[in-house]
Amino acid sequence: MSHVSNRPATGTATLRAGLDGVLAGETRLSTVGITGVGLTYLGYSIEDLAEHATFEEVAYLLLYGQLPTQPQLKAFRDRIVAHRGIPPELCQVLERIPSSAHPMDVLRTATSMLGTLEPEKSPQEALHVSERLLGIMPGVLLYWYRFHQSGQRIDPTIGGDSIAEQFLWLLHGRPPEALHVRAMDVSLILYAEHEWNASTFTARVVASTLSDFYSAITAAIGALRGPLHGGANEAAMELIDSMRDPDYAEARLLEMLAKKEKIMGFGHRVYKSCDPRSDIIQVWARKLCEATDLMLLYDISERIEAVMRREKKMFPNLDFYSASMYRSLGIPTPMFTPIFVLSRVSGWSAHILEQRANNRLIRPLAEYVGPEPRPWQPLESRS
Amino acid sequence: MSHVSNRPATGTATLRAGLDGVLAGETRLSTVGITGVGLTYLGYSIEDLAEHATFEEVAYLLLYGQLPTQPQLKAFRDRIVAHRGIPPELCQVLERIPSSAHPMDVLRTATSMLGTLEPEKSPQEALHVSERLLGIMPGVLLYWYRFHQSGQRIDPTIGGDSIAEQFLWLLHGRPPEALHVRAMDVSLILYAEHEWNASTFTARVVASTLSDFYSAITAAIGALRGPLHGGANEAAMELIDSMRDPDYAEARLLEMLAKKEKIMGFGHRVYKSCDPRSDIIQVWARKLCEATDLMLLYDISERIEAVMRREKKMFPNLDFYSASMYRSLGIPTPMFTPIFVLSRVSGWSAHILEQRANNRLIRPLAEYVGPEPRPWQPLESRS
Repeated sequence: MSHVSNRPATGTATLRAGLDGVLAGETRLSTVGITGVGLTYLGYSIEDLAEHATFEEVAYLLLYGQLPTQPQLKAFRDRIVAHRGIPPELCQVLERIPSSAHPMDVLRTATSMLGTLEPEKSPQEALHVSERLLGIMPGVLLYWYRFHQSGQRIDPTIGGDSIAEQFLWLLHGRPPEALHVRAMDVSLILYAEHEWNASTFTARVVASTLSDFYSAITAAIGALRGPLHGGANEAAMELIDSMRDPDYAEARLLEMLAKKEKIMGFGHRVYKSCDPRSDIIQVWARKLCEATDLMLLYDISERIEAVMRREKKMFPNLDFYSASMYRSLGIPTPMFTPIFVLSRVSGWSAHILEQRANNRLIRPLAEYVGPEPRPWQPLESRS
Repeated sequence: MSHVSNRPATGTATLRAGLDGVLAGETRLSTVGITGVGLTYLGYSIEDLAEHATFEEVAYLLLYGQLPTQPQLKAFRDRIVAHRGIPPELCQVLERIPSSAHPMDVLRTATSMLGTLEPEKSPQEALHVSERLLGIMPGVLLYWYRFHQSGQRIDPTIGGDSIAEQFLWLLHGRPPEALHVRAMDVSLILYAEHEWNASTFTARVVASTLSDFYSAITAAIGALRGPLHGGANEAAMELIDSMRDPDYAEARLLEMLAKKEKIMGFGHRVYKSCDPRSDIIQVWARKLCEATDLMLLYDISERIEAVMRREKKMFPNLDFYSASMYRSLGIPTPMFTPIFVLSRVSGWSAHILEQRANNRLIRPLAEYVGPEPRPWQPLESRS
């Protein structure tokens, strides 16, 4: 019996570890680091989007492929607000997830559970499911959080009319300041979409088996959780928190670099000289730290940046200044990566739709480096 | 501001849709379709493993890299049996998942929930978590199933001393026949591992962000669910079930082929002339169908195979004859893909360990095919 396969003949394929630099498919959704273009969502520059758009406009752009008109935007916002309710079974699950759980595990479990309660019955429901997830996510996260913090069962349907406002409102239990809402909104815009990063790629691999929408999003949340991906903003905060002032930060960082410790929040797989999102969030971090009397935190952050540039020629990525900005908004560190989810659900959803529209199962090959074929060895004869 | 990146210059990289034929990494765990070698797990041929091994030996081989000695195997089996208990919070979640849910969604949600109850606190716990998942999975699936079928809260800790035996025991509520247990065991062996298939690749992408073990397994379950992957065995059963006899099957299949409908359970991305697992499971399907008076089902299956070979030069893959064999064991069709999970947890776990041992973030690039850069358009001016 022969096992002829489509494996590349030896020597014809070169293995690029981590698929670094390998084109794995096509996308209309964003450019990341294309020379002279930088980061765009469907052709609009991230600078324009962060300056002029709201997160809901950006989410609409990603899901529907064009900016909404005023009536389209109003209807979209209304649908997302209408999708805030949490089914009682899901509330009961959230109450049974321990208070010690990582909030990313809460979102992963809740998304999977919602998929059993409100399954995607046909691919025509995909846009509905993505809007439902955009609507329900902040409430799910904060229902769990506030229940375990204070035993309170919050009403997840309240909280203003945007995702940014609702998140801060439910977190603090009161209407947030306009400046804070706008800072949060900009952060959501910056985190919304980023081409075939690891979590988006995960969502597309799952979608490529023609599995359901919830499976793809649940998987993406699991991928985003890792410290080499979304988890980096929490790691950046821990680093900044460990410093008491800029001079101490510089001395400590030099020690860490000498020991070759990994510094989170710097560098990027695709960007090689700067992350265009970092410049935008840095301005907001300074503004918010000033407004909330946290300039020490900001000054420490700037010094860490300066040392990394000087010593390692490394630039901050979006995660680095997001950390001090989130702190200035009173957001607990374990919520940093979950905020990334609330936003990136839009990008993931758009990629799942794009994958389905022109699908091919994503199934690479591996180079075999294991033992040669060997005969069976009966249990009795092993030692 | 320039955005220099590591993108390949235009024309230097060719896009292979679905990463078909692209080497994405290395593995010691299995060969799939290498000419003259076929399918091996760590050098042992699938024919030898299906003939001589038990599933627990195979799982040990995958997780620990070598066949166990007698004391090692006994200790491994004992640990898996000891891992059968379901925490009360997880039982409560299972009771809240609707009876209408797909059992794959039950396993996905339960794995994610278990990750909140018994988180992986350090990478040293990885082998423990994989054994825990091997032990708990059959009970989780059947606790949910029997609770919603009959309101019964079964004891998931009983059921003999192997995964194959326990699954059939809990499903039917009585000790299974030895022939049935062995058939189930062979099926678990055949499904245990298959190189960088879509669900395993998903698990590795998630693991490559240094996320936790449960996130990777949860994601893999979501990928396996799709009809282009694990879901194919259920689709094959539905096809066979729609046929009343071999002649009808032939006529109906010719119609379907004329309409270019997709026939599940045939062909394979990597194998090009046969799936070595199919020959093995076909023998078992015949044996079990004979023993349980289901030869009509088997004969229909054989006729479908003959037509597919004659008309399309396509061969059955593992999923095709698994369907009639599972039916002969009294297993409901929606349980077919979940059985794949009970087994493949071993392969996924081994790949997560392998990924972590030599990690590089898996992050490919996409070719941009979207709109050219365009100026911002204010909301008021859109139409």
